[in-house]
Amino acid sequence: MSLIKSVEVTPIAFRDPPLLNVYGIHEAWALRTIIEVHTEEGVYGLGESYGDQQTISQLKQVAPHLIGMDVFHLNAIRQKIEKVVTLPDPKSGLEIAPGTLGATTVPRIFSAYEVACLDVMGKLTGRPVCDLLGGKVRDEVDYSAYLFYKYERHGFTNDSWVDKWGEALTPEGIVAQAKKMIGEYGFQSIKLKAGVFEPLEEIKALKALREVFPELPLRIDPNGGWSVEMTKKLLPEFSEGLLQYLEDPAPGKVAMGEVSAVTDIPLATNMCVIGYFDVPEAIERDAVQVILSDHHYWGGLRATQELARLCKTWNIGLSMHSNSHLGISLMAMTHAAATIENLTYACDTHYPWQEEEVIKGGKIKFNNGAVVVPDKPGLGVELDREALAALAENYKNCGIRERNDVTEMQKYQLDWQGTVPRF
Amino acid sequence: MSLIKSVEVTPIAFRDPPLLNVYGIHEAWALRTIIEVHTEEGVYGLGESYGDQQTISQLKQVAPHLIGMDVFHLNAIRQKIEKVVTLPDPKSGLEIAPGTLGATTVPRIFSAYEVACLDVMGKLTGRPVCDLLGGKVRDEVDYSAYLFYKYERHGFTNDSWVDKWGEALTPEGIVAQAKKMIGEYGFQSIKLKAGVFEPLEEIKALKALREVFPELPLRIDPNGGWSVEMTKKLLPEFSEGLLQYLEDPAPGKVAMGEVSAVTDIPLATNMCVIGYFDVPEAIERDAVQVILSDHHYWGGLRATQELARLCKTWNIGLSMHSNSHLGISLMAMTHAAATIENLTYACDTHYPWQEEEVIKGGKIKFNNGAVVVPDKPGLGVELDREALAALAENYKNCGIRERNDVTEMQKYQLDWQGTVPRF
Repeated sequence: MSLIKSVEVTPIAFRDPPLLNVYGIHEAWALRTIIEVHTEEGVYGLGESYGDQQTISQLKQVAPHLIGMDVFHLNAIRQKIEKVVTLPDPKSGLEIAPGTLGATTVPRIFSAYEVACLDVMGKLTGRPVCDLLGGKVRDEVDYSAYLFYKYERHGFTNDSWVDKWGEALTPEGIVAQAKKMIGEYGFQSIKLKAGVFEPLEEIKALKALREVFPELPLRIDPNGGWSVEMTKKLLPEFSEGLLQYLEDPAPGKVAMGEVSAVTDIPLATNMCVIGYFDVPEAIERDAVQVILSDHHYWGGLRATQELARLCKTWNIGLSMHSNSHLGISLMAMTHAAATIENLTYACDTHYPWQEEEVIKGGKIKFNNGAVVVPDKPGLGVELDREALAALAENYKNCGIRERNDVTEMQKYQLDWQGTVPRF
Repeated sequence: MSLIKSVEVTPIAFRDPPLLNVYGIHEAWALRTIIEVHTEEGVYGLGESYGDQQTISQLKQVAPHLIGMDVFHLNAIRQKIEKVVTLPDPKSGLEIAPGTLGATTVPRIFSAYEVACLDVMGKLTGRPVCDLLGGKVRDEVDYSAYLFYKYERHGFTNDSWVDKWGEALTPEGIVAQAKKMIGEYGFQSIKLKAGVFEPLEEIKALKALREVFPELPLRIDPNGGWSVEMTKKLLPEFSEGLLQYLEDPAPGKVAMGEVSAVTDIPLATNMCVIGYFDVPEAIERDAVQVILSDHHYWGGLRATQELARLCKTWNIGLSMHSNSHLGISLMAMTHAAATIENLTYACDTHYPWQEEEVIKGGKIKFNNGAVVVPDKPGLGVELDREALAALAENYKNCGIRERNDVTEMQKYQLDWQGTVPRF
């Protein structure tokens, strides 16, 4: 028995560059929560999750109910969370479809605790987390360069912080960003966040990337920013293998199915298939050929493995989605991805966009775009408590409590709506 | 690191009563294989699998390739088996459909080793196997009474062994068998193996069971022995909730889909959905509402959990299938079933039909039809080496090398064919 003695849930904020997307622009601070699970024998484990108020309050709400539970009893912990977590009011607008509030809440809250418990289990057994998931099938996990259109600096902050990446508002700017990022990280594939400019302008950037990086697989993700009609019109632009996959061109399973019916380019999603409840319809419609998994909302690392089995069964590709995150999440992603044979695409990560860290030793190193799967017990990272305190202080002072790219963009452009499809 | 030092694969045979089914009759000996995985630190783990020559030779063939591998590296072990195992000749008749030889072989061979490795992992970490699968969600696992039509004794053996169960060839005989078995084991649900006599005669037995056990859920399994037409004609006999589920009335996914379309009675299968490769078509046809999982051929305990996720996603019920087996398999089933929330039906087991054991302490006890999930490290059972030697001696002497209920039945009835559907 290894019983949970206490749980710490610490909201943090860290610098985030002015990255553009179809909804608007990233605010000056990204929010996140660090979860610590401490056991009676004095071992602790780490989790990292979203930093919106809803998630923070749910994480805190379930915490006392986990005290006295065995960290190995992940299934019972999931059941406990399901039983005690307060779901948002159906009128809150957070319900994706009738009945989905629990189907999206429980996996999200459980995931943070599952990772922390797996970290403890690894430390107790002297095993890296991947060994508690059946062991790695690769020694390192590939990530992709995640390019964004961006301004040089935030237009509406009180301080003078400027990220190191510079402006990128043209094909040339995107190519320069790619060169810099690939120069530093060695990524072997490239994703362009799109939906910001006219599609043909963005495709110019893709083609410019193809010229400079003829061997690297390319992806483009307009976040459902294109109509079905527009997407169909654009498809010839992607001929001759320009794309490895096309991510969420149009919004929703119906639209994606309509696009899928007229192209051989694999369609990927992290938007219209975000939980098991979405899968049957997606398969029926043949709406997606690649699912971008994300343990933070699919229900943890084991749930990600179960998704992999499901993808293998229906011959659906599997890759990994990312939000702004720090090293605990990167390590959790790396351990899970290392164990999944059919996770054959390089995973997405926002990691290069963050300068700060909450783990000892600072930012995790990439070699040729890959993260080495650690052999250390647990996740293989330790909490830097000074850094945690500083980032928690940021959270208190930053004034942001919900990520909202739309309202941030409205500061730049008064009539901004941020609705999709835009084009 | 906990490296595999040696592997033992021991074929065994134990007494099996003359149980009747649609194919014919059980032979006097049931075959099985006991797998031991020994690590360099002197810990061993147990697996149990089929005892046909094909399985034995494949288990032995892969064994030397596992030496030096880490018992925690289950995914790598599966990959290794996939790489080195020799698949049967496609002309052998063992291929279910083009391309399925690997899809049925690898899970079957891997499963035996996965269980043995999990047993070691449990012993090394001081944790029951269920804790390595996310922990139990129930303290005991329910099994069902598995009734068979049977003769009093085998007609064609050289010795005088007679099982304790007596003849059961009529509704009264089946009721008497149920009373005896439930008296000893306390089972809370009942399955009747059918396909032996005219369907209406067998349904008489079901209705007699319903009278004597008004509260217990009933199932009937003719092993695909009925045609679709016959099954449709019989459906009114199952009205008023006589059945918890109807198992494999007709053979194959097409036939099951046709039956399913005209009844609300859940259809269960362990015949037309025996691996992940069967699932997409089964779902498309809505051919089955309950899958009877079996870790021995679905690919182990974690693969069974993955199947559970898949069943939950499509709202398909989940229960467990059984062949003749001993206590190592029973414990593996119990650990897996304990961790699966949506395994809500009592599992099948042939266990009462076997008198012998290969584990210390003899036969595992049932309370009210349930097996308590052990808290001991690993599976919670230890090998009785004297018993193993005796059962291995049985194997050498029994003369049987492949289970064949058809040829055994031909001894009783010269023109027996054993083809389905029979009725």
